Amino acid sequence: MLKELLENVRKTQPLVHNITNYVTVNDCANILLACGGSPIMSDDVEDVRDITAICSALNINIGTLNDRTIPAMFEAGKISNTLNHPVILDPVGAGASAKRTQTAQALINEIHFSVIRGNISEIKALAVGTASTKGVDADIQDAVTDTNIDTVVKFAREFSASTGAVTVITGAIDIISNDKKTYAVRNGHPIMSSVTGTGCMLSAITAAFASANPDNILDACLAAVCAMGLCGERAYLRLKESDGNSSYRNMLIDEMFNLSGKILAEGAKYEIM
Amino acid sequence: MLKELLENVRKTQPLVHNITNYVTVNDCANILLACGGSPIMSDDVEDVRDITAICSALNINIGTLNDRTIPAMFEAGKISNTLNHPVILDPVGAGASAKRTQTAQALINEIHFSVIRGNISEIKALAVGTASTKGVDADIQDAVTDTNIDTVVKFAREFSASTGAVTVITGAIDIISNDKKTYAVRNGHPIMSSVTGTGCMLSAITAAFASANPDNILDACLAAVCAMGLCGERAYLRLKESDGNSSYRNMLIDEMFNLSGKILAEGAKYEIM
Amino acid sequence: MLKELLENVRKTQPLVHNITNYVTVNDCANILLACGGSPIMSDDVEDVRDITAICSALNINIGTLNDRTIPAMFEAGKISNTLNHPVILDPVGAGASAKRTQTAQALINEIHFSVIRGNISEIKALAVGTASTKGVDADIQDAVTDTNIDTVVKFAREFSASTGAVTVITGAIDIISNDKKTYAVRNGHPIMSSVTGTGCMLSAITAAFASANPDNILDACLAAVCAMGLCGERAYLRLKESDGNSSYRNMLIDEMFNLSGKILAEGAKYEIM
Repeated sequence: MLKELLENVRKTQPLVHNITNYVTVNDCANILLACGGSPIMSDDVEDVRDITAICSALNINIGTLNDRTIPAMFEAGKISNTLNHPVILDPVGAGASAKRTQTAQALINEIHFSVIRGNISEIKALAVGTASTKGVDADIQDAVTDTNIDTVVKFAREFSASTGAVTVITGAIDIISNDKKTYAVRNGHPIMSSVTGTGCMLSAITAAFASANPDNILDACLAAVCAMGLCGERAYLRLKESDGNSSYRNMLIDEMFNLSGKILAEGAKYEIM
Repeated sequence: MLKELLENVRKTQPLVHNITNYVTVNDCANILLACGGSPIMSDDVEDVRDITAICSALNINIGTLNDRTIPAMFEAGKISNTLNHPVILDPVGAGASAKRTQTAQALINEIHFSVIRGNISEIKALAVGTASTKGVDADIQDAVTDTNIDTVVKFAREFSASTGAVTVITGAIDIISNDKKTYAVRNGHPIMSSVTGTGCMLSAITAAFASANPDNILDACLAAVCAMGLCGERAYLRLKESDGNSSYRNMLIDEMFNLSGKILAEGAKYEIM
Repeated sequence: MLKELLENVRKTQPLVHNITNYVTVNDCANILLACGGSPIMSDDVEDVRDITAICSALNINIGTLNDRTIPAMFEAGKISNTLNHPVILDPVGAGASAKRTQTAQALINEIHFSVIRGNISEIKALAVGTASTKGVDADIQDAVTDTNIDTVVKFAREFSASTGAVTVITGAIDIISNDKKTYAVRNGHPIMSSVTGTGCMLSAITAAFASANPDNILDACLAAVCAMGLCGERAYLRLKESDGNSSYRNMLIDEMFNLSGKILAEGAKYEIM
């Protein structure tokens, strides 16, 4: 299954509209190309009207949000909904600032997201103050572990039921869930957190996977998460003693460029919860 | 000739003012340094007044244009015209959105560009609605091929006659033309399209080449296009099996850093049309 | 001493708020991670209120300043002062445009900076028009050399006395000074100027070093400057014939990732002036 999900990206080469932060935008563009998609960036409210329409997916990342780009996020999201394009939200820093939390929540209230991807803190911050507040368990700490995984699964399903989106919570263990079905992924390597933007990159390619596999967004997310984690593992194996996080970043993107459906299918480590 | 054109860049180290998108801006800065130029970025309408004046060329790239940066493009362009500095336009996404098309056309109407560089779709989009509309041939598809090259040459010359700029149309075959003389370049490698920003990078170095060779902008463009394509070829030869588009991007810039006038002269593949 | 200063960064992993230019922002984030810190970027005046508060240091870089981000610089700087967090100013291009010079001077007047880091031209531009004008010696050329070093030391001390900040003037010889004590550093390699953003990266890690060593900002700056220069030297030794400035940039960040306290202590070349 994962093989086909990746190959569909390579076959359809989805054009992904990204409204994203300026910190990691270049890596997002290059990893989109690496996985078989095609990137376009536009964050002007007027410009996005046309750009969104010619794309087949939208990735909204609030990493360096501001009053000029926020209206573009709403505009592009609404147009994408009208066109039935998948829309991904990466709520970077939700919970860290009121503006980020409130913007992400307002986006969720006005736009239907196919996927919401963040770390556990970000997703928890979004759940508070929305209909799924009751789903927030104070016991969920800032990491998904084997000890709290069942609680996180329950939370993710409730958040998905509340938002209508596939919930992707990334960390040492990644959780991918809709309101009924949940995957746990154990790919990846701790060194990935030494590179800025691995989360942003994952959100960007998730948009491409969702676009190429519109009838199966949950599995598309699984494929994207496994692909990213597996590339992280494979890049780690290539590191020489003198290499550091900058070379590792290049290898990570290179691995995505060279990732075949077969390698992905064989290397993916996931279970149904 | 190409040898001297490159060596002039290395000798004069032109300071190039870039108003460019935030996606590929870092690569533009590093490839400008690699070719012998020096980059400065400024996109605030007030700030550009001083920055433009201390530079010797201006590169306007509309990739992530917005209402704050567009006035800076006009302001910097007009000042550069007054100072007789070469101005390059990279109309990223013209034809993809009305805002991009109209902004690029308005820039062309109000500013004299030394060079306009884009792919065939972008240049066609600009030609429509300007005095050269008649030059747009519906037969020109989205790629320059041996079959349609004569039509593209005619179109490029008409567009140059209309704009007063050297027209650079990049693709598998690159066309460099003023209203009378045209070069076709066959350097480059298909993998270059797997890296974001190779077009942006070419526009940035074209500004440096034009500044260093002010009396011969057409040949300066030829040298920049051949240099970029040749570096793409040479970087491709260095790729190991495990490398991908991110390593390739680094090698591409590295090749520009190490490119000598001799290598350029020997490796350039161009013909006069 | 330098050993402990670096190890304190690795131990405390300071979260550094960066309001910085979009040209080199990704490299700043990755080198912050490489040295042991953690980056967050935010330049919206409303957003910075919360982001500044959760961080432990602030790095203000005026490289691509504009009317939207300038108020965020003032706001974040004032909040950081209230919280007693170290604030670093990188006055990119001060002296090159009136807006940059005036913004940097206004920031210095309203915010207490722990460190101001720039090249000699930038620092001179800031000194003119402030209380330390008298400290500006017309004899100081645009490079610190063995011939003018005593004059520069005197100037740096006066600028520090006037601003209350540690003054870091980088070049072939780096000067690190408060109003009483001055270090001269001779680490680094000329090829560093072929990479965009080595100055920005140094300012970013200086914020991390200052945060991790709050009682000794002068020595924290010394450690950051020596670390950056030493990484530049060590990266240079790794260059193969086919490598250029893009690979060098990766190696520079990689070296910071792998830099140990022991290597730093042994490789640092500084003297007390």
